[in-house]
Amino acid sequence: MDDKAQIQEAIKSQGEVVRKLKAEKASKDQIDEEVAKLLELKAKLGGDDGKHQFVLKTPKGTRDYNPKQMAIREKVFSTIIHCFKRHGAETIDTPVFELKETLTGKYGEDSKLIYDLKDQGGELLSLRYDLTVPFARYLAMNKITNIKRYHIAKVYRRDNPAMTRGRYREFYQCDFDIAGQYDAMIPDAECLKIVYEILRELDLGDFRIKVNDRRILDGMFAVCGVPDDKFRTICSTVDKLDKMPWEDVKKEMVNEKGLSEAAADQIGTYVSMQGGMDLAERLLQDPKMSQSKQACAGLTDIKLLFSYLQIFQITDKVVFDLSLARGLDYYTGVIYEALLTQAGVAPVVEAQNGAPGSTEESVSVGSVAGGGRYDGLVGMFDPKGRKVPCVGVSIGIERIFSIMEQKAEACAEKVRTTEVQVMVASAQKNLLEERLKLVTELWNAGIKAEVMYKKNPKLLSQLQHCEESGIPLVAILGEQELKDGVVKLRVVANREEVDISRGDLVEEIKRRTS
Amino acid sequence: MDDKAQIQEAIKSQGEVVRKLKAEKASKDQIDEEVAKLLELKAKLGGDDGKHQFVLKTPKGTRDYNPKQMAIREKVFSTIIHCFKRHGAETIDTPVFELKETLTGKYGEDSKLIYDLKDQGGELLSLRYDLTVPFARYLAMNKITNIKRYHIAKVYRRDNPAMTRGRYREFYQCDFDIAGQYDAMIPDAECLKIVYEILRELDLGDFRIKVNDRRILDGMFAVCGVPDDKFRTICSTVDKLDKMPWEDVKKEMVNEKGLSEAAADQIGTYVSMQGGMDLAERLLQDPKMSQSKQACAGLTDIKLLFSYLQIFQITDKVVFDLSLARGLDYYTGVIYEALLTQAGVAPVVEAQNGAPGSTEESVSVGSVAGGGRYDGLVGMFDPKGRKVPCVGVSIGIERIFSIMEQKAEACAEKVRTTEVQVMVASAQKNLLEERLKLVTELWNAGIKAEVMYKKNPKLLSQLQHCEESGIPLVAILGEQELKDGVVKLRVVANREEVDISRGDLVEEIKRRTS
Repeated sequence: MDDKAQIQEAIKSQGEVVRKLKAEKASKDQIDEEVAKLLELKAKLGGDDGKHQFVLKTPKGTRDYNPKQMAIREKVFSTIIHCFKRHGAETIDTPVFELKETLTGKYGEDSKLIYDLKDQGGELLSLRYDLTVPFARYLAMNKITNIKRYHIAKVYRRDNPAMTRGRYREFYQCDFDIAGQYDAMIPDAECLKIVYEILRELDLGDFRIKVNDRRILDGMFAVCGVPDDKFRTICSTVDKLDKMPWEDVKKEMVNEKGLSEAAADQIGTYVSMQGGMDLAERLLQDPKMSQSKQACAGLTDIKLLFSYLQIFQITDKVVFDLSLARGLDYYTGVIYEALLTQAGVAPVVEAQNGAPGSTEESVSVGSVAGGGRYDGLVGMFDPKGRKVPCVGVSIGIERIFSIMEQKAEACAEKVRTTEVQVMVASAQKNLLEERLKLVTELWNAGIKAEVMYKKNPKLLSQLQHCEESGIPLVAILGEQELKDGVVKLRVVANREEVDISRGDLVEEIKRRTS
Repeated sequence: MDDKAQIQEAIKSQGEVVRKLKAEKASKDQIDEEVAKLLELKAKLGGDDGKHQFVLKTPKGTRDYNPKQMAIREKVFSTIIHCFKRHGAETIDTPVFELKETLTGKYGEDSKLIYDLKDQGGELLSLRYDLTVPFARYLAMNKITNIKRYHIAKVYRRDNPAMTRGRYREFYQCDFDIAGQYDAMIPDAECLKIVYEILRELDLGDFRIKVNDRRILDGMFAVCGVPDDKFRTICSTVDKLDKMPWEDVKKEMVNEKGLSEAAADQIGTYVSMQGGMDLAERLLQDPKMSQSKQACAGLTDIKLLFSYLQIFQITDKVVFDLSLARGLDYYTGVIYEALLTQAGVAPVVEAQNGAPGSTEESVSVGSVAGGGRYDGLVGMFDPKGRKVPCVGVSIGIERIFSIMEQKAEACAEKVRTTEVQVMVASAQKNLLEERLKLVTELWNAGIKAEVMYKKNPKLLSQLQHCEESGIPLVAILGEQELKDGVVKLRVVANREEVDISRGDLVEEIKRRTS
């Protein structure tokens, strides 16, 4: 069999794979992937007849942003950046890839999701997985011991994308971090204040911010009888409580991780607890919990944190929740996560019968921000292990984009994708040069203006363009206007027209569009 | 020999490599690379004593941006984006990587500089090499036949970086393109107008914009007797005229590419020509050049282009230059390149003895924008080969950053990296809660404010922080001020202090910092 015949065979069998998946109503992602393979095969075959048979798609788990999506994205970024700046943050940027070894050993099990670059000679490189590790590398490399910075950039994870829920392989992170040796809980409280302000200003509906502390979790595990070497793995099981009912979490602890039933039940009692400063006080008196020095340190800090949150006037949305675990290895103190609780977005999970609720997935879908304290990470990069205490928060911007896009779809008002103030138009022929002269005057005066790239465009098509892209004014030129030294200024919304002397046009446009 | 001993041997010999390079005064890049290898070896050795021996660097050819560099970058972007918006552009974004086949066959010899991702199962991916090919893929994929868009994002080339001259492996491109079937040269002229406006507004010193046309180049090669199959390779030799003297270019044509001496000399005469509309007219009468239909089409368009440039009032900086070739395969019509000509940045190369000048490299260093017409690229992605004519320009933003950074260094004024308006401070102890209360009031009123994360910071260190980061005002609280219901507002610049009643503070800060 020659190459061509082989490819034809492959196309045939791949075609059957696709048909079968469609018949089985497989997921769109899965079908798309197999269709892509089919198209690739067909492209190979079509290669010699001169036609270009590309697979026209973006890589799996990624997307283009069209102008409308970009307009929404810019609005969201602007709100967030404005908040970061209000709190005095600087910004930095780092390369999209790092030396592979910079990322090694920072993400535990998730390391398998890191994208590596092909070895083309030279250094081994990986795409950044988050912005926190590059930040720590930056601090250590430049010997910076205190900074308050934000960083908005894309990160990369070879995850199974669920794009409808705003989960991608390429996605934005939007991080605010405070590094430096400061008095306890003051920067931590400011991070929560920032989350509160951003979620309020983005107007995404009601939300709550869960708070816990790694030391409380570790102390809890210790007093519940979890062996030291099982803290991390049991912690990552607890982290699944936002996706799995308690019964399944317990099963995993007992059957898979070998924990005793008694220990698991004891953990179950604790992780169902939610409250505020009062809960921290109660647990400090708890006969079991108070035996752990670590837990007491964490609980004392939670109390202090809440006293600052009261001053910041944000305790209405913050809850101390012992089930919050968060996966990443590098957290050392306070951890937190913000969830949207509005109906239709993500229902609140109500604790029942003393065990955490079980509205599978709903809460994790609603997670829009998270972070915590990581006092050890910078030290991992310092040759002498010198530590720089850090606390930060990451805003889950993709999820927020998805919600804003849905909102924009639902809302009648059109999203403008340009800022053009005026279109220079003509109803008559042979006035291209005059239109170009006028638009030059406007550009030179700083007016945002457009002109059609045609010698003799129809007035209707010029007006239609204004309607479609929301341009509010049209400056119309004709033989008569040129003779009179005026321009006919038309308001697109109500079709009113008025002659403006050419010398006054710039001011008039500014006045009407300010 | 065990592993450890082997590594120790390797460290020893690598150490000698480094010493030798330093003795020979080799380039910093070269030394850095060998030092990195040495550190890596040392890291291996240190691995088992528990200490963390990372190579603390960014990948070769990349850099971090610190807050000061980011402030400059944001200013430059803001100027450029403002210009794009003035001309009615929308913006889009595409993923940082594309399917490998999307990039295949678009960049000629430069394809070897593309970064591939490691095959970790699934699709074969490459980092984008420019923003033009992803733009064409986007148009074809979404069946868009006209759009005016800008795109500012990082692109990746495994080139030999010359970072001091603003050349990196990861660098920003800043593209503006107009796609659509329009009347000749109108969008092309607007692209040049945009380059002119941006370079003027960035205030980088004098500049000129060279213009040519691929069809004139091809016609010229034809009438000079270059065989058809050698057009591309001879064109890429002509492209080196900005880096090599004519003698060397000629040598390459004759000795390496097998062109006859007579043909080379004839090309030499043409490529030394510079002018404006007049030169285009003269060449249309040229007995040789006028024999080429292609050249005539290009020359007629250059004439038309200049007539529009006159209306746009930018002919003082634009020159029709037959030596301009530009490397990329996809150009089909007008091409252009902008150069800084200010002394100290890039001296103007003066043509001497009818042959182009030879101030090696200086001009290419000064190149800060380039682009042209590419009518065939979108069709390469369309299954039916449907074409979408495009013209665009790319601003060489990294070179511009470098110049702006040098300027900022040279200039006495400090670059502010935050926008904080006021620092909430205290001279007395035990007022943390009062400071937090006041800063909350300010944040809630939209004031950009900071507070020190210490229980009892010294007044001096609070004032020093204001001096260092350019914060103009300090709101000072003390027992007396609290009793009186006032805040002491201090102007950092002149140390003036005045008591403001707490209710008026927000308005007073806004008034003083507007």
